[in-house]
Amino acid sequence: MKRSKKEYPLAQVYGLLEPGPVVLVSTNRSGRFNVMPMSWHVMLEFVPPLVGCVVSSLNHTFETLRKTGECVLNIPTAELAKKVVACGNASGLSANKFEAYGLTPVEAGIVKAPLIAECYASLECKVVDRTLVTKYNFFILEVVKAWVDPRTKLPRTLHHMGEGVFAVPGRTIRLPSPKTSFLT
Amino acid sequence: MKRSKKEYPLAQVYGLLEPGPVVLVSTNRSGRFNVMPMSWHVMLEFVPPLVGCVVSSLNHTFETLRKTGECVLNIPTAELAKKVVACGNASGLSANKFEAYGLTPVEAGIVKAPLIAECYASLECKVVDRTLVTKYNFFILEVVKAWVDPRTKLPRTLHHMGEGVFAVPGRTIRLPSPKTSFLT
Repeated sequence: MKRSKKEYPLAQVYGLLEPGPVVLVSTNRSGRFNVMPMSWHVMLEFVPPLVGCVVSSLNHTFETLRKTGECVLNIPTAELAKKVVACGNASGLSANKFEAYGLTPVEAGIVKAPLIAECYASLECKVVDRTLVTKYNFFILEVVKAWVDPRTKLPRTLHHMGEGVFAVPGRTIRLPSPKTSFLT
Repeated sequence: MKRSKKEYPLAQVYGLLEPGPVVLVSTNRSGRFNVMPMSWHVMLEFVPPLVGCVVSSLNHTFETLRKTGECVLNIPTAELAKKVVACGNASGLSANKFEAYGLTPVEAGIVKAPLIAECYASLECKVVDRTLVTKYNFFILEVVKAWVDPRTKLPRTLHHMGEGVFAVPGRTIRLPSPKTSFLT
């Protein structure tokens, strides 16, 4: 584990995923690491943090997720944009994407899938509900351990707007919000 | 309908919601309009556009959505940030939030819930799957008609990071992306 990332409270994980960043889903299938970008995710519960996500059955990751029931959601920032797109345009069947794109796998704390050192946050996940997998390719994950680089204050996350266009946060607005749950 | 918004192709709706903006969910319960902010949403399918979303059973909107099966997802930009937070901190039981916060309801094309004139995009939705409503308050919506202000090129959408802090897009990155579906 790179020293730059520290364990992060599970109750605050929603603030990482709720703004809608592209994530890199890393998996481990019998010792073979793979990674794919994904934007179709949603928070479902604060504690324990539950995350729903769509992984197309056309992707290699779909079968791995079904078989292993584990993955890591890694959150990249703008510096990694080209690698993110490259990961999305190659198949894990033919390429070792970690080697091909210079991503560094790091051993996770609980799951067998690797953390990605270059991403500012990594969420170790287990599949906990497969009710909608057949109909919508929709997996429900529980975040069982979270890691964040504490030096990253306003992460320049990537927000996919379609066809290779990404928005990147430029500033923050702070407003009084007496209820933390107001946006659910 | 304000002339500034035009009908928008359903096949491009994913590009509006995929970046993870806060939306204002507007509803109509027997002629009474209501509105609440929501960030826990996810694309599930391109065409027809399917959207999953969590509406807490503590919110007035939950019962309305269950009973009417209709809503509009309106996408606000940064100018509306204070109104968005105010909508989240008041209950539709006691307040007429459209009047209280100066939001303008506009007749929709298909559903009975109103579009919000001040938002740059509005998506008319019908509930099409309630499988996970009881367990996760998770509704699956189909977007049946979409409206977007064509003058808004890089919308300064609000991305909730928790406790009243929002990130706002500051720039875009454009990268070659041969596959439009790479992020699913």
